[in-house]
Amino acid sequence: MEGNASSDTRPHVVILGGGFGGLAVAHDLADTKARITLIDRRNHHLFQPLLYQVATAGLSAPSIAAPLRQILRKHANVTVLMDEARDVDLDHKVVKLARGDMPYDALVVATGATHAYFGHDEWENHAPGLKTLEDAFAIRRRVLVAFERAEREEDPAQRQAWLNFVIVGGGATGVELAGTVAEIARHTLPREFRRADPRRANVLLVEAGPRLLPALDPDLSDKAHRQLEKLGVQVRLDTAVTAIDADGVMLAGTPYAARTVLWAAGVAASPLGRKLGAPVDRAGRVLVEPDLSLPGHPDVFVIGDLAAVTQANGKPVPGVAPAAKQMGRYVAALLKARWRGQTDIKPFAYRDDGALATIGRMAAVAQFGRLKLSGILAWWVWLIVHIAFLIGFRNRMVVMLDWAWAYWTYQRHARIVTGIDERSDAQTTLPRDA
Amino acid sequence: MEGNASSDTRPHVVILGGGFGGLAVAHDLADTKARITLIDRRNHHLFQPLLYQVATAGLSAPSIAAPLRQILRKHANVTVLMDEARDVDLDHKVVKLARGDMPYDALVVATGATHAYFGHDEWENHAPGLKTLEDAFAIRRRVLVAFERAEREEDPAQRQAWLNFVIVGGGATGVELAGTVAEIARHTLPREFRRADPRRANVLLVEAGPRLLPALDPDLSDKAHRQLEKLGVQVRLDTAVTAIDADGVMLAGTPYAARTVLWAAGVAASPLGRKLGAPVDRAGRVLVEPDLSLPGHPDVFVIGDLAAVTQANGKPVPGVAPAAKQMGRYVAALLKARWRGQTDIKPFAYRDDGALATIGRMAAVAQFGRLKLSGILAWWVWLIVHIAFLIGFRNRMVVMLDWAWAYWTYQRHARIVTGIDERSDAQTTLPRDA
Repeated sequence: MEGNASSDTRPHVVILGGGFGGLAVAHDLADTKARITLIDRRNHHLFQPLLYQVATAGLSAPSIAAPLRQILRKHANVTVLMDEARDVDLDHKVVKLARGDMPYDALVVATGATHAYFGHDEWENHAPGLKTLEDAFAIRRRVLVAFERAEREEDPAQRQAWLNFVIVGGGATGVELAGTVAEIARHTLPREFRRADPRRANVLLVEAGPRLLPALDPDLSDKAHRQLEKLGVQVRLDTAVTAIDADGVMLAGTPYAARTVLWAAGVAASPLGRKLGAPVDRAGRVLVEPDLSLPGHPDVFVIGDLAAVTQANGKPVPGVAPAAKQMGRYVAALLKARWRGQTDIKPFAYRDDGALATIGRMAAVAQFGRLKLSGILAWWVWLIVHIAFLIGFRNRMVVMLDWAWAYWTYQRHARIVTGIDERSDAQTTLPRDA
Repeated sequence: MEGNASSDTRPHVVILGGGFGGLAVAHDLADTKARITLIDRRNHHLFQPLLYQVATAGLSAPSIAAPLRQILRKHANVTVLMDEARDVDLDHKVVKLARGDMPYDALVVATGATHAYFGHDEWENHAPGLKTLEDAFAIRRRVLVAFERAEREEDPAQRQAWLNFVIVGGGATGVELAGTVAEIARHTLPREFRRADPRRANVLLVEAGPRLLPALDPDLSDKAHRQLEKLGVQVRLDTAVTAIDADGVMLAGTPYAARTVLWAAGVAASPLGRKLGAPVDRAGRVLVEPDLSLPGHPDVFVIGDLAAVTQANGKPVPGVAPAAKQMGRYVAALLKARWRGQTDIKPFAYRDDGALATIGRMAAVAQFGRLKLSGILAWWVWLIVHIAFLIGFRNRMVVMLDWAWAYWTYQRHARIVTGIDERSDAQTTLPRDA
């Protein structure tokens, strides 16, 4: 379909995925001699670190997302296409898209990861994960509708089941969701209900491992644990979830009734990774060369959450936004060096800028090398860092205003339910006429 | 299910629908001796006059919607329930809800209207209407994806079909949608596309009657017509749409290829109206008594878009927000008078506060009695009136900021596509692999 490509001698770089990694490549190759085509099945870049705020009704979707073609509009050599990559023909250097073929000279695969259920795909209906805006809307709908259903429910046990929330997974997303749901129950909703008391909500954070936030040092895990408990979250460590259904979860063999279960436990790489013919790790991440290229294919690069990269200290590069950005910038620099005829290109080296996790109102933990922060100071750092990295001046302003508003009023302005709640009425004690 | 109701001697007023009418009843009966239950199948009140702005990516959904229970939280005698009315048992004074029965002493039915296709329900798939937030998201998705598909399309005729937009219906919604889609094509998108030129978009506004905005005086219809043409909209009057499918529309026997058709032509009252046993008009609106009660049932009232009411001058009361509000306030005052033992209650009288329609950037028409405005002055009046009537101080601020932003930058910040575009690929000339 790119019939005019052969008459164009500029190298054609195709980037699959408009996340932090893909966008970094496009930015750094903009205004070079290359023709760039960035392909994403969505029309927007998503600022995933704040996605939990959309899920918990604190921010509206457009505040943390921006159209890819708007972000890249000033770069005349960049074309943005909304399409979906299905496969790559490495021999002929062609990407197979849903709507046609796309030849490339260099290919950057940055299609990221989604949530995974460790072989229990049937759990997905009962415990939605959080990777896309649609996921965030589904979680928002479930959390808000649960309180509505509790208000509607006459049977005390059923009412409590609608007020019980389980969050599975004690990483950053699980900690953020648990803290925020507890804040909604304790501070945002109480005066608004007449029958069910939102303060009787139980928010249970379940982690299979021995501590929360395993990416941080153990003392910060403990601090996060204590801050969560202060916000009203019950934390259960060393507890595996062995079953999830419409009624609740099975925790180490004991059933716990909860109509709302949120999944923040597992991650799996985009299925495109397995189609590249290279070895992948257990999560489906591609084991790339030190220069992030696909083994045997120096013109194909895999970056971001889809790449399995090991640091000099033996630890894996974490699946976070700064790592994806660094990989994107590295690949752009590598390509520019190659085009200049340079051959001695250093391998990719990850620079750890630190880690942050917010817990709730004025509570967070942060770690920058040896510097560790917790509580209100970490919360301010978290706030400033996240606003600074948001794309678009307008979004920064709006998110700041939304947060100031939420802070002073305890209100969460995006408490709007759209779409249909998927949970069945099987358990409801009230008669339901067709 | 309301077992405790019999022990409570306070009159129980049930309100179905949390639109402008239902909310006005609840507000005016708050803090009386009555128990109020407001039931809506959504959790939010929607400021429908600005819904077209959500559909055209100018505003985010939470800016024009607010949770009903948040709006009414300060009134201890008001209970908000999220449920859906299926039927009314007038003899036993019980509302049949999806999740149980609800007895009432007085009932206010304010479930509004939706769009209608004049017996052509099969058109709905090809030409979505605009009544709910979900509708707005569907229209936003269609409009934005159409430009994406044009950019992806190689065949010139197919590309143009993706750039052709037809809006059916020349009332306020049709005029607003047409003006805004033209503005997006001409001002927001041009620099962002590399292959398709959004300025080649055709926006066609089709009206079966002899003029636009039939609710206004003919000279204002003409002014609106001219302002739309200046914005780049093609207006076709006296033109009936006789068919709509995935390829486009049939206009007075001539096919017009357009992959995006929006419906702003017909309105039908909520189906609950026909279940009340009273005569209804052609659109399904209930022919109420002069005091807005259901014939033969003085404790049941029908208000807002669901009620067919005739003014003293013989004209029907229009289906607009101020009319619904006035009816709600009237019913609340009537109930309060009855509870005081008063019997000589005057019939409902509609007070016409004027009519407004916006057309696009700095273009609008307005009519207040004999005073008529058009152009930039009408636009300012429109802006101020709509911000003033928005619920919530925060929403007023945010909408003002969003508009100021859009005005200066020509950007529309909510250009985020979520969900799946329903249009088939049948016509696409590119191969599509499974």
